[in-house]
Formats: sequence, structure tokens, C-alpha cells
Amino acid sequence: MSSSLKHIGVLTSGGDAPGMNAAVRAVVRCAIYHGMEVTGIHEGYTGLLEGKLESLNSRSVANIINQGGTFLKSARCREFYEPEGRARAAAQLEESGIQALVVIGGDGSFTGAVLLAREHRVSVVGIPGTIDNDIYGTDFTIGFDTAINTVQDAVDKIRDTATSHNRLFFIEVMGRDAGYIALYTGIGAGSEEILIPEQSRGMDYLLQSLERSGRKGKTSSIVIVAEGDKSGGVYELAKTVEAKMDGYQSRVTVLGHIQRGGRPTCADRVLASRLGVAAVDALRDGSSGVMVGVRNNLISLTGLEKACKERTEINAELIRVADIVSI
Amino acid sequence: MSSSLKHIGVLTSGGDAPGMNAAVRAVVRCAIYHGMEVTGIHEGYTGLLEGKLESLNSRSVANIINQGGTFLKSARCREFYEPEGRARAAAQLEESGIQALVVIGGDGSFTGAVLLAREHRVSVVGIPGTIDNDIYGTDFTIGFDTAINTVQDAVDKIRDTATSHNRLFFIEVMGRDAGYIALYTGIGAGSEEILIPEQSRGMDYLLQSLERSGRKGKTSSIVIVAEGDKSGGVYELAKTVEAKMDGYQSRVTVLGHIQRGGRPTCADRVLASRLGVAAVDALRDGSSGVMVGVRNNLISLTGLEKACKERTEINAELIRVADIVSI
Amino acid sequence: MSSSLKHIGVLTSGGDAPGMNAAVRAVVRCAIYHGMEVTGIHEGYTGLLEGKLESLNSRSVANIINQGGTFLKSARCREFYEPEGRARAAAQLEESGIQALVVIGGDGSFTGAVLLAREHRVSVVGIPGTIDNDIYGTDFTIGFDTAINTVQDAVDKIRDTATSHNRLFFIEVMGRDAGYIALYTGIGAGSEEILIPEQSRGMDYLLQSLERSGRKGKTSSIVIVAEGDKSGGVYELAKTVEAKMDGYQSRVTVLGHIQRGGRPTCADRVLASRLGVAAVDALRDGSSGVMVGVRNNLISLTGLEKACKERTEINAELIRVADIVSI
Amino acid sequence: MSSSLKHIGVLTSGGDAPGMNAAVRAVVRCAIYHGMEVTGIHEGYTGLLEGKLESLNSRSVANIINQGGTFLKSARCREFYEPEGRARAAAQLEESGIQALVVIGGDGSFTGAVLLAREHRVSVVGIPGTIDNDIYGTDFTIGFDTAINTVQDAVDKIRDTATSHNRLFFIEVMGRDAGYIALYTGIGAGSEEILIPEQSRGMDYLLQSLERSGRKGKTSSIVIVAEGDKSGGVYELAKTVEAKMDGYQSRVTVLGHIQRGGRPTCADRVLASRLGVAAVDALRDGSSGVMVGVRNNLISLTGLEKACKERTEINAELIRVADIVSI
Repeated sequence: MSSSLKHIGVLTSGGDAPGMNAAVRAVVRCAIYHGMEVTGIHEGYTGLLEGKLESLNSRSVANIINQGGTFLKSARCREFYEPEGRARAAAQLEESGIQALVVIGGDGSFTGAVLLAREHRVSVVGIPGTIDNDIYGTDFTIGFDTAINTVQDAVDKIRDTATSHNRLFFIEVMGRDAGYIALYTGIGAGSEEILIPEQSRGMDYLLQSLERSGRKGKTSSIVIVAEGDKSGGVYELAKTVEAKMDGYQSRVTVLGHIQRGGRPTCADRVLASRLGVAAVDALRDGSSGVMVGVRNNLISLTGLEKACKERTEINAELIRVADIVSI
Repeated sequence: MSSSLKHIGVLTSGGDAPGMNAAVRAVVRCAIYHGMEVTGIHEGYTGLLEGKLESLNSRSVANIINQGGTFLKSARCREFYEPEGRARAAAQLEESGIQALVVIGGDGSFTGAVLLAREHRVSVVGIPGTIDNDIYGTDFTIGFDTAINTVQDAVDKIRDTATSHNRLFFIEVMGRDAGYIALYTGIGAGSEEILIPEQSRGMDYLLQSLERSGRKGKTSSIVIVAEGDKSGGVYELAKTVEAKMDGYQSRVTVLGHIQRGGRPTCADRVLASRLGVAAVDALRDGSSGVMVGVRNNLISLTGLEKACKERTEINAELIRVADIVSI
Repeated sequence: MSSSLKHIGVLTSGGDAPGMNAAVRAVVRCAIYHGMEVTGIHEGYTGLLEGKLESLNSRSVANIINQGGTFLKSARCREFYEPEGRARAAAQLEESGIQALVVIGGDGSFTGAVLLAREHRVSVVGIPGTIDNDIYGTDFTIGFDTAINTVQDAVDKIRDTATSHNRLFFIEVMGRDAGYIALYTGIGAGSEEILIPEQSRGMDYLLQSLERSGRKGKTSSIVIVAEGDKSGGVYELAKTVEAKMDGYQSRVTVLGHIQRGGRPTCADRVLASRLGVAAVDALRDGSSGVMVGVRNNLISLTGLEKACKERTEINAELIRVADIVSI
Repeated sequence: MSSSLKHIGVLTSGGDAPGMNAAVRAVVRCAIYHGMEVTGIHEGYTGLLEGKLESLNSRSVANIINQGGTFLKSARCREFYEPEGRARAAAQLEESGIQALVVIGGDGSFTGAVLLAREHRVSVVGIPGTIDNDIYGTDFTIGFDTAINTVQDAVDKIRDTATSHNRLFFIEVMGRDAGYIALYTGIGAGSEEILIPEQSRGMDYLLQSLERSGRKGKTSSIVIVAEGDKSGGVYELAKTVEAKMDGYQSRVTVLGHIQRGGRPTCADRVLASRLGVAAVDALRDGSSGVMVGVRNNLISLTGLEKACKERTEINAELIRVADIVSI
């Protein structure tokens, strides 16, 4: 079984996340540790179609574990969403002698991988790499821990500034469908309120909460808003609140792409190293169409399709903690 | 049951850890949320004996979540290890109207708490706060995540410097009995070898590994050494290796107390907030003599005595990952 | 002369800046060093009018040198812009026995100080504290060095992310009238273009520059935009450029108030310590109506009125360097 | 004159310093800006002798401005100290068509450059790159600003930890002959005492100062010790002080090589960019045997020999400030 696997490929796909380099490094070194050949595919599925391949050895991945981004680059590829694109990809893999593929990315990337595996019997294993932490089958995704520290650091800085009375700071963080970044950083940075897509408490709730904060002697309030929140955009939200709260001034910060970058934290590097090794282990065990994750601190496999379809529920305990500690 | 609990105390004890402030804040705010009174005890058991008490409200713990150290201060108290000391402590609590105590610290602090609870029927709940991550009953202790990022950042900087040929860097990190800091940072910083107290592979193994690294083209090697390692101190170790490896120069860095400080990471603040809330919940539920922890991402109670006596095994999967990714 | 000065006051005013705490600390300790009494005035001129005074000793300013913001808080005060307000302020100072005042802030704060000194013969010395670095009479203002590192760190993170082809990042930084933050961080972060209020090169120049970057193989470009730039706001600018550059996508980040916060850098703490000592020295020498600054690495005095009126020319050498290193 | 200069070389030499990459990048881009060819020489003079040359273009130096260390690597070269070595180096330059050389390093590196220029009429310009800030002819050397922030950050973390009573922290920082790092970080981190090679106040002075701190209510004291201090090593010093101060415990941290690494600060990147451009300008103007520096915020040339021989006096004002703000 494992004896027949001699050559694997690895690519990063979709929005990049800090720690992807550490994952690639672990895939490469674990493959070499087991005597296999490894090909790095640049620019995701796009690069696969265009034949942007590079043979990697142990030294190729030296000095990248501490770098943000992904040295293999990432891209979104429309062509790959068509059957013809995947057929060409499969042909490219065969031609290059690549017997199995490790795909590091989020659920968009995994959807493509599922189809490639099903239509062309390509062995594929996924590694969850996205700052959003919204992949079913793993407690944490690669990049999430770095992203929340980046956001927290920014909010800490805003908290430092002179706390003029009656000032409201609205800070938009990433998370189109998932409120994890907002929830963790809202607790970690000690924000007064957190708005996430999974839970809509309405404008009245927000206004009452902010007024309560004012009465308790807080001179300024910070509201963390996930970009997927239903309130209609952070600028709109700030305007509405300012209009309804007499004598309050609002300030908006849109953190944007700084959340995708930065040197990966230790937890992200360790997670990425574990998952990179686990992905190669899974391929050697003959697995395909699966995603490797860490659940309850143990390596765990989940069907790639299930990982794409299922949703992780937001942790109700964390919401309660956020409510209690922000009084 | 919970209705009878009206007034709790909170203290930090032993070696301090980043995130202790976030834990105190959560204890205070959760108690106030439930209508209780809270007294902060300064300088641990010493301050309890000396009556260094301060009534805390929601505003007392504002703007501390992002601070390293502990604003209640911490201390080691010899007197408390004697029955007379604990008797005086119990009397002080009763006199002040404090019905239950939250102790934030490591196993030394918990041992005292166990005796206080047993001898004087004081309700006590422990929160694991120590950078060493060596407490049974919780996947992570408060401060560990910050400490490993501090160490990793230092090692990243050392890795940056001109990689002269045949140079060996030995970096001593904290962990007298536990190798977690060394193991995580060894993986995260991409070190060539990791020496931990739980596992002795001997000098020959180390020399062979370093020579192998040299042959593979690594121009310099980094060895992370837990202070509890059996090799006899990092300076001694560096000298021995230098003597045996012809043409190699060694450099030693002893990170020391910088590992205890620094702004807590987001993960540490969230963990501390969860455990602070959980400790008050536990007291309200009538629990005593227990430690709150997070296991498999769920709040979990462990008997304080058990938490002191049992040992967490070092994760064998992590050791294997470390070996593979450092080739 | 100096023998007659027994009691001084200190306040921070206007937009806060990292390092203000270090300046207050130096003022307090230098005054105490010379046997004087010191009163801290909370919330700037507003607090002076409202009598928010606190007697400070050497320990009052312990453990603040490393904190962002200002523990004395800052505020903008309309009342002080009226003669009646200043009369009340002077009366308050006299009543409290404060013989001289150290004002830490920007040119708005100094304008008030000039009038106070002129109308009421109050001895006043100014310390330049603002992140904008736009005060005449000092090479650097307190807070500028920290702010440029904060911005640079954010841009570094954006640079990390997957460099999709043809992507333009527009990053708005502070500086309504002054382009120093934009110019320094544009060089430091290696941006492709820098837009500052002091220099308008027009849209055609920008488009040509970005097209040239694309032709040279840069896969993405970063443009730093000072908020005072004449192009009409960063969102508007991004839209215009995107419309004119076929096949390019733009992303906007507005850094906002994170630029005012953060732990002060070493240079800012040293500068603030020097200026705090120099301000007390100046008062003891009998000076009034002056600002202390550092020019050519020497302590230097400038008339407060001149400091408010004159403008520092933007350094032409830096603009040339920016142009050359961004090719 | 400038028209005849068509091809220059650039190397980094001696101990590396953060910002060297930014300097190389500026040299390369400024040369290309003026239509010249540029060759990067790896591993300093050693690489020059061994012919480790690489032709560099504008893209070769992309994405390095934010990296610590030097991508050209650095080395110390014994052979170059002999006339034969320099003769071979000159021959290598001529053979490769390199007409002039930019040397980035400290005074050791400049001494070699002076001899090379004198003996073989090679045009040479030096750029001061060393964390020690001990080069005559420039207000700051490349790397100093980053190093002091690294040290300060470490001391801040130590300051965070529980301030047990009567604890003394001794922190050794770099600076064999120069106390700049110790002096700046001592002020910036708010240390109680600073020991530098330029000034010996003796053990009695230190003991009295520490006792005074204790009496004033400071619960712990931090002493910054430059490695060149005459007291005989930081461990020895700590032991002596502990023995003489009854009831005090001491802790030692040796920061070591972390001071050479890390992402360069904005000030270091701007300084390096300016000096890189200035070095090429100087060569185009026909200068040789000079070092470019920044004095009083202006580009300034100094004879390389003078730069090696003269010493910058330590700033007496800074010593006074340090004494005053640490009371």
C-alpha cells in the first residue's frame, strides 16, 4: 500500500493564511523522511493547469516556517470549476508522475479536490488552512490563531488612545460567514459588544448595551463587527448608532488584509507541522478524499465532502463568557 | 446552594503567568454578574495572612486584560505550609466575610489550597495559571501560549543572524520538570534538536543528529534545552558538544524571566476568561476542592489533589512530528 | 531664579501619542530631583478648569514608561479657547499654588498655552507630543517613531498575503496636513507609491507609475495615502484607479486609531525622557513661552508661537530616496 | 566621471545587523536607476575571494526590506587581513568587471576596505551597519534602532513579572566597547542602573544606588550591563551584589544573539535606504575611501580611515537623563 506511493504533489489554494508555509514544509519533509519525491505546485490549481511545478527537497523549505503567506503562492482558479479543467489537471499530474496530491486551503479548495478525486481517481488529502476557523472536522484551522492575535493587537492599540468621553469605536474584522475571529478577539480584547453573522440580537439590544456601558462609567466602547454581520456594513452601523445615541462620536477601523499576514504564532506552526505530517501519513495509509484535522488534541480524519458541507456550531459557552466578562 | 454564596475572594500565587489578570477580571465580573461581593487578596497567601485585602468592582479590573503579570501580585509563602499559618488564613477569611476562595496558580499553590479546604472547610476552587503547562486536568494552563510565542520570537531572531558555518546555538528555556515549552517552541522555531527532562536520548544521539544536520547543508544548528534537562546545564552542554565536534563554535542564550512576561496572547486571554467564569460557576454549584480546566475544548472539573499528584504524559505524536520536520 | 520655583503642573493635551507617559514621568522625576512639588492635571485644559488635580510623586509614575496613551488622559477643550476660560485656568493654577505649567501636546495645545502665558503671566513650557511629526523646532515629535512602526508592521502583513496578480492595495495613514508618516512608512514598507499633502503629482503620474510596476513584474502594488492627500479620500481614489487600470482589483485598508496607540518604541521613550528633563530645566532657568525640542541631537528651545506658526519643510532627500528605491 | 562607472559590487561583512538587506536593496536599485550593473558578493570578503558572485536586478531585492539578517550573508575573513588576500580580491574584482565596491559593515570591515582601496586603487565606499552604534561619522548605524527595541521589549517582559520584594535582575546586553545599547535601553526600559564600559562608577556606587531604590519602595530593581563593562561579567557581578545586599535575590538574563536579529524597525529601514542611495551617489561623484553617514539628519561623508580611528564620545546629556529619571 504505502510502498506503492513514490511521488506526491502539494499546493496551497484560496485565501492564504499564516502557517501555510509550515504545513508545506512538514509535507515535504515527511515525504522525504519516507523516501518519497515531492513536487511543489505554484499558484494553486491555476499553476497546476499551467505546469508551474518545482521539485522540492528538504533544503527548499528551510527558513520558511517563520514567514507569513505561502511561498508556493495561492490563487483562485475558475477553470478548475469546469470538468475540462479538472481533466487537464489530472492529465498534468499523471504526466508529471505525481500519484497523490495534498491540498492546503479552505472549503472552496476542498470542493475542487473532491471532484478531482471522484472524476479522475486522484488520491487527495486536504489540510484546513484559512484564518476563518470555519471548517468542519478540526478544532482549529491553520492561520486562525495568528489572525486573532493580529486583531487583538490592533484593538489593544485603539484601547490605548485617550479615552475621550462618549466615543464609540467600531472595528470590522474578517469572517463573512463565521464569527469566530470576532468572538475570540471580542473576548480577548475586552470589547463591549461583538456582532457576528451567527447571531442577530438587533439594533435595540446593541443600543441598550452601549448605554449601559456608559452608565457604568466606561468612557469609551469598542464594538467588534464581523464583516458578515447582518447590520449592513460597519460604516452604516456606526452612523445609525451615532444618530441614535445623543452626544456620542463614532470612529471606524476596517482592518482588512492585515489579518491574513504576519509571522505565524507558535500554535499555528505546531498545528501546521502536525497536519502536514498527518496528511502524508494518511496518503501512505491509502486514504484519499479525506481532510486531516486536530480534534480534542488528536489527529482526526474527516471525509472531504463532509468537511465542505457540515458547519461547526458557534460555541455557546464562549458567547456566554463574552456577555459576562464585558459587564 | 448558590443562594448562600455572597462573598468570594481571589488571589494569584506562585510564579506569575501572562493571563492571570484576565482570569482575575473574569472571576470578579462573573461574581458581580451574579450579585456577589468580591475581595482581591494581594501577594497570594502572604497577603492573606497580612490582611492585604481590597474590595473589587467591575471597574477595578478595567484595562488589565492586556497586561502581563498580575496586578494582585504573587508571592511564595512559607508560613502557609505550616498548619498554624493555614489556621490564621482561615480565620482571616472568616473575619473578612469571605466564604469561598479562588486560587490562581500552579501545583504548589494548589497543595496549600487542598490543605486549607480540608483542615478548615473553606470552599476553594483552583485555576491553573503557570507557563509550564504541567498541570493534570487541563489541556492548557494560562500563560503557556504566551510563553511559547515569546520563546519562538527570540529563536526567530537568532535564526535571522548571519548563518556562519558550523555554529551551534544552545537556547535554554523554562521547564524544570516539564518539556512542553521546549517541545512546542522546538517545533515552532524549527530547531534541529530539543532536549527535555521527560526523555533522555544521550549525548551520542545529540552529536550524531548535529553532524547529520551539518552534512545536509545546514550552516548552523539550534538546540532548545529545557532547564530541567539532565545534561547538566546549558553552558556545560555547549562546552561538551563544542569539544567533541571539531571546528564548531557554540553560542549560549539563557532566556530567563522574559518567558514569564509580555502581553498575553488571545488564546491565553480567552482561556483565562473561560476559566474565571467557570471557577465562579463551580463555587455557585457548591463545588469545592476542585480545579477548573479546559479539556477537549470543554470546561472540566478535576479534584485539586488529583491535579497536584497526577502527571500529564508528554505527547508522543509531538515528539515524532519534531523528529520528522527537523530533518 | 530657579530657587523661587517650588511647584509645577503638568498636563497632556490634544490627540494622544505613545511616549506621553514617559514625558510626564521625566517631568515629575526631574522636578522631584530638584526638590520641587508636582501636580498632575487630568484631561488637559478641561481637567484644569474642572480642578482635576493630583499630587504626584516618584512612585506615581512607576510602571508607565512602557504604556501607550497617557495616564493623565487628554481632551480637547473649547472653553479654553475663550479669554474667560483661560482666566479661570489661571485662577485655578494660582489657587493650587502651581507656579509653572508643562504642556505636552501639538500645536493646538501650544496655541492655548501661548495665550495663557501672555494674558496671565503664567510660566509655560511646551513638549511636542504628536504622532504627526509636524511641529517646527524639533527634528522629531514624541509618538512619531512608534506610529511609523505600527503602520509599517501593518503594511508588512499586507505584503505577506498571497500576491495575486494585478492587485492594488491602498492604505490610508494619518497626517491631515503632514506627510511624514506616509513618507517614512512608504520607504520603510517598500510601497510602490506614496501620496502626501505636501506634493501633488496628479492622477496621471500615479497611473503611469503603477503600470510601470506591473510591467516590471511586480504582481501587486501598495500605495500609502496620507489622509490629507488631495485626491479626495482613499475609497474614491481606489475606485478611480481601478476604473482606469484594466484588469486590476483594489483593496482598501484604513488604519485609523491603531496609529495612536501601542507601546512606545525605545527612541520615543528616550526622546520623551530627554524632553521631560529639558522642560523642567528650562523652567528652572527662568524660561517661559518656549518649546523644548531635539535638533541635531541637541536639546533646543524654540518660541512657542514660532513653533505654532512655522512649518517644517518636507525633506526633499527622502522623496528622492522613496522614488529611487521603489523602482 | 560618473559616466565611466558602469558596474559596482556590494557586500555585507562582519557581525550582521537588521537593515542590511534594506541597504543592499537601496544600493542595487539606485545603481540600476542610474543604468549601472550590480553584482552581489555573498559571504563578505570570503565570498569575494571564493568568487561567490551573483548578478542582481531590481527584482532580486524584492521582499527583503522587511527581513532581518542579510540575504548576501556575512562572514569574517582572516585571509583578507593579509596583503596576498587583498591582492587576490582586487584581481577577482577586475576579472569580474566590478569597478567599485560598496562595503556594508563595522570598523573591522572598513579597515579591510581602506587597505584594499589604498593598495589596489579600488574605489570603495562604506556604509555603517552594526548594532553597536559605535562608528564615528554617523549619528546612527544601521541596526542600532532595531537592537534597542529588541532589548527594551525583553526588559519590559521581565518588568511584567511578579515584583517579589528584594529581587535584582541583571540583564547583559551587547556592546563590547560601546555602551550605547545599554544607555538607550536603560533609559527606555526604566532600569534602575546602567553599567557601560565608558564609565566606571565602581561597586560602592552601584550598591548605594540599589539600596536607595529599595528604600524608596521599589520592590525590584533592574540593572542593564553592557558586555564590555569592567565589573567582570554579569554572573560574577550578580553574585557579588547578592552577597553584599542582605536579603536580596538576583536573577541573570544574557540576551545574546537575539539582539542581532528581528525585522528592522522603520527608522533602520529608512536610514539604510538613505545610506544605500548615498553610497551609489558618492561613487558616481567619484568619491572613494569614504563612509556615508547621516549627521544632523543630513547625508555626510567621512574618510573611512577616520571613521575607523575616531571614537564617538558617549552623550553626557543622556547619562544625566538616565540618572534623573531613575530616581
